[in-house]
Amino acid sequence: MKYDLDSFFKPKSIAVVGASRDSRKIGHAALKNILISDYPCDLYPINPHEEEILGLKCYHKLTDVPKPIDLVLICVPAKIVPQIVRDSIEKKVKHIIIISSGFSEVGNKKLEEEIQDLIRDTKIRVLGPNTMGYKNASDGLDASFVFGEPRKGNLSLISQSGALGIGMIYLANNEFVGVSKIIGVGNKLDIDDDDLIEYFSRDPDTKVIGLYIEAVKDGRKFMNSIKACKKPVLVVKAGRSKAGARATASHTGSMAGSDQIYSAAIKQAGGIRCRDIVELFDIARALAGQPPMRGNRVGIITNGGGLGILLTDACEDNGLHVPKLSDETYEKIDKILPELVKPNNPVDLVADAGFYRYEAATKAMLEDENIDGVIVASVHGGYARPREFTGAILKMIRERKLHEAYRKPILATWVGGREYEDLVYDLKSAGVPIYPSSWRTARAMWGLYVEGQRLRREGLLD
Amino acid sequence: MKYDLDSFFKPKSIAVVGASRDSRKIGHAALKNILISDYPCDLYPINPHEEEILGLKCYHKLTDVPKPIDLVLICVPAKIVPQIVRDSIEKKVKHIIIISSGFSEVGNKKLEEEIQDLIRDTKIRVLGPNTMGYKNASDGLDASFVFGEPRKGNLSLISQSGALGIGMIYLANNEFVGVSKIIGVGNKLDIDDDDLIEYFSRDPDTKVIGLYIEAVKDGRKFMNSIKACKKPVLVVKAGRSKAGARATASHTGSMAGSDQIYSAAIKQAGGIRCRDIVELFDIARALAGQPPMRGNRVGIITNGGGLGILLTDACEDNGLHVPKLSDETYEKIDKILPELVKPNNPVDLVADAGFYRYEAATKAMLEDENIDGVIVASVHGGYARPREFTGAILKMIRERKLHEAYRKPILATWVGGREYEDLVYDLKSAGVPIYPSSWRTARAMWGLYVEGQRLRREGLLD
Repeated sequence: MKYDLDSFFKPKSIAVVGASRDSRKIGHAALKNILISDYPCDLYPINPHEEEILGLKCYHKLTDVPKPIDLVLICVPAKIVPQIVRDSIEKKVKHIIIISSGFSEVGNKKLEEEIQDLIRDTKIRVLGPNTMGYKNASDGLDASFVFGEPRKGNLSLISQSGALGIGMIYLANNEFVGVSKIIGVGNKLDIDDDDLIEYFSRDPDTKVIGLYIEAVKDGRKFMNSIKACKKPVLVVKAGRSKAGARATASHTGSMAGSDQIYSAAIKQAGGIRCRDIVELFDIARALAGQPPMRGNRVGIITNGGGLGILLTDACEDNGLHVPKLSDETYEKIDKILPELVKPNNPVDLVADAGFYRYEAATKAMLEDENIDGVIVASVHGGYARPREFTGAILKMIRERKLHEAYRKPILATWVGGREYEDLVYDLKSAGVPIYPSSWRTARAMWGLYVEGQRLRREGLLD
Repeated sequence: MKYDLDSFFKPKSIAVVGASRDSRKIGHAALKNILISDYPCDLYPINPHEEEILGLKCYHKLTDVPKPIDLVLICVPAKIVPQIVRDSIEKKVKHIIIISSGFSEVGNKKLEEEIQDLIRDTKIRVLGPNTMGYKNASDGLDASFVFGEPRKGNLSLISQSGALGIGMIYLANNEFVGVSKIIGVGNKLDIDDDDLIEYFSRDPDTKVIGLYIEAVKDGRKFMNSIKACKKPVLVVKAGRSKAGARATASHTGSMAGSDQIYSAAIKQAGGIRCRDIVELFDIARALAGQPPMRGNRVGIITNGGGLGILLTDACEDNGLHVPKLSDETYEKIDKILPELVKPNNPVDLVADAGFYRYEAATKAMLEDENIDGVIVASVHGGYARPREFTGAILKMIRERKLHEAYRKPILATWVGGREYEDLVYDLKSAGVPIYPSSWRTARAMWGLYVEGQRLRREGLLD
C-alpha cells in the first residue's frame, strides 16, 4: 500500500479555501455541498475577507485554523494556488483537492510543475487541478462543487472529464445503477487512476470499478494496476480515432497514445473495454448483481422468434456461443411448449408466453451443463403479457436456491413501449439487469464472460 | 407496375373469414381491429354458425356476400384455408391475407404449394400465411389481429416476424417515430418484400422504408427492388451468425444465406443495413426530418470535452470525418467562447453553455463549407442548463431560413438523467432527432451520409 487514501475519502476535517457567500462562485457551491451532505466532520471555510459563511465561522488563512485538517479543497484562482499549497504544507494537512482550473489544460504546465516541486518531499496527496472533486455516496460526503446526488451502490467511478463525470451520475441514477464513489481526476498532477484503482480494489464498499480516461501518465503502471485489481475494471478510453486523439490533446493537454495498444493492453490486464458510458453502465449493472459466466455458452429464451435471432447474432458477434440444446433440456422444454412448436436455442415460447413457460424454460436452461448464462427476452407482440414476463424474471433473479445451485447469470431484454417501460422501471429499481436492445444485452453478457475468464486465470472460479 | 397493391392497402370492402364472437379467438380480434379503425368500407364477418358478430350481419360463406370484396382476411385452421382460397377465387376477390399459421413454418410446405397452385392463373394476391396482417396508419385501417396503434408518420415497415413487427410499433410510439404502414409478410407465399418495396417507393405517404428480414426468396430480385427504390431503405437482416441462421431456419423455415453477401449486396444496392431495430428507428428518425449529408464531414458542438471526444471517435469509427475548423469558423466561434477556451472541432462550449453559445456555434458550423452535418450535444455536467440547450436545438432545427440556405442535417445528443429526459421527450415529440449516446448519434449521421451517397449517384443531390 503506497498511500493511505482512507482519510482522503473519509476525512475527519475539511477546509474550503476560497469559500464564498456568492452563490455563483465555485467556493460557495463546494462548501454548500459538504453542508448538504451532513457528513460528520469539522468544516472550515477559508476567506480573508469574511467572518462567517453559510452560518459557519470563517478563517482568514488555513494556518489560522486551530485544529488539524485532513482535506483541503482549493477554489481560488490558479495563480494563488501555490501559496495555498504552501500554507497546507505548513499546516500539515493530509490531502488537497485543487478544483481550480487554468493549469496544463490551457497550456500552463509550469504552474503544475511548481506545485509538484512543492509537494515532492511531503506526504501530502493532491487531486487535480481542474477537477470536480469527488462524491462519496457510501459514506455520505459530497466533496465536489457540482450538483447531483448519486444513488448509493457498489460501482466506483473515476472520470478524467468533470462534465462527463457528472453526466454519469445522472445517467446512473436514471438507470438505477448504484454508486459508491465518483471522482474526477482532472489533470492528474499527483493522484492518478492507478492510485484510485488500487484503493478501490481494497475498498469494501466497491464491487465494480469504472473509468473514463482520455490519457494515462504511465501506461505500464496503469495496466499493472488493472492487473493487480481484485475487482472487475471497466474502461471507456476516449480518443480512439485520430480526430478524437487531437480533441483529447486540446481537452486535457495530454496525448492519447496508440489505440490498438490500449485495447490489447486493457484486454491482457483483464480489464473490460467499453465503447461508451452507456455500455459501461450496462455491464456494471450485470456485474453488480449477477455471477460471472464460467464459459461462453448462452441459452436464449424469448416469446418472439425474430428477437431470438437478433440476440443470437449479437451474442455470436461478441464471441459468445449459442449452442444447440442437449437432449435432456429439449425434453424438458418440449413439455411446456404449445403443440406444433419445437424447442431450439433460442427457445421461442411463442407470443402469448406467460409466467410458467418463462420460469420453466429458464430453470431448464440453468440446469443444463452446456449453458453458462441465460438471456430471457420479451417483445410486446400484441399478445404479450408484460406482467407475466416481468414476474417470471423477478422470481428467477431472486430465487436464492437456484443461484446457489447453478451460479449462472440471468440477463433480460425487452422490446416494446410505455406499457413495458413502466414495468421495466420496477425491474431496474429492483436491480434486475434488463436492457432495451439485443446488442446491449449481448455486450453485458460478454462483460460477464470477460470477468469469468479473469477469475479463472486467477484461480478464483472453478 | 407489376401489381396494384392500392386496393390491398385501401380496400373498399373486407371480409373476415373465421370471424368469431369468442374474444380469445384471432378471428374476433381481427374483426374488432377493423371496427375500431372506423375505416370507411363494407365489412363482412364470415362464420357458418353465426348470424351476427359484434353487431354486424354474419354470412355463412364468402360466396353468400351479395357485393364485391376487395380483401379477405383468413383466420381459420390451416387445413381449411385452401377451401377458403377456392371460395375467394370464385367470388373474384382481389386480395387475401392468410393470418392462419401451421404452414411451412412447422414443416407443412405442401399446404403452401397447394395454395400457390390455386392462385397461379388468377389475379389474386396473397399475403402470408403466418402473418399478423397490416396496419395502415395513413388511411386509418387496422387489418391485423394484434394490439397496437401506430403514430401516424412516413416510415413504412415490413417485418418477417409478426411479434417483432408489433414490438416495433410500441417502440416507434415510444420513440415518437411516425409510421405510415406496418406489414408482416409471414411465410411470403406470394406477396414478398420486393413487391412491398416497389409499392412503398411509389406511395406518397411513405418517405422512408424499413425492413426486418430473416431470409428472402430471390436475392437478386430483392436487391434490384432496393436499387430501383426512390426512397431510403433500412434493412435489419437477422441470422448473421451461424447460430442465428440455424434459428432463422427454425423460425420461418427459410435459409438465411451468406451474411457477407447480403451486407455487400445491400450496400451496393444503396440500402442502409442496421444492426438492430433500435438502430433502424434511430436512422429512420434522422432521415424523416433531416436532409442527407452531401459529404462525410461532421462538426461537433458540446458543453463537455469528454462527450465531444466520444462523439468524434464514434463518427470516425463509422467512416465519417471530424475535420479541423477553417480559419473563418475558428474566428466566429472564438468570439463567443469564454476567455482561455479555444475553439476546436469538437467545439467545447464549456459546462455552463447557454442558448446563445449553442445557437451561434451551430450557425457557424452550418455556414462552414467544410462541414456537411452538425452534431449538437449536451451532458448534464452539474452546471448544464437543459432548457437552454433544448431551446437552442429547437430553434436551429426549426429555423427554415437556415435549412433552405444550407440543407445540412443537425442531430442532437444528450447525456443525463430524468431532468433532461423530460425535456428530451418534448424534443422527440417535436420530431427532433436526439439520441442518448454518442454511438447512436454517429450511426444516425452515418445513415444520412449513406443516403446522401445514394442520391448523389442518382444525380439527385449536387
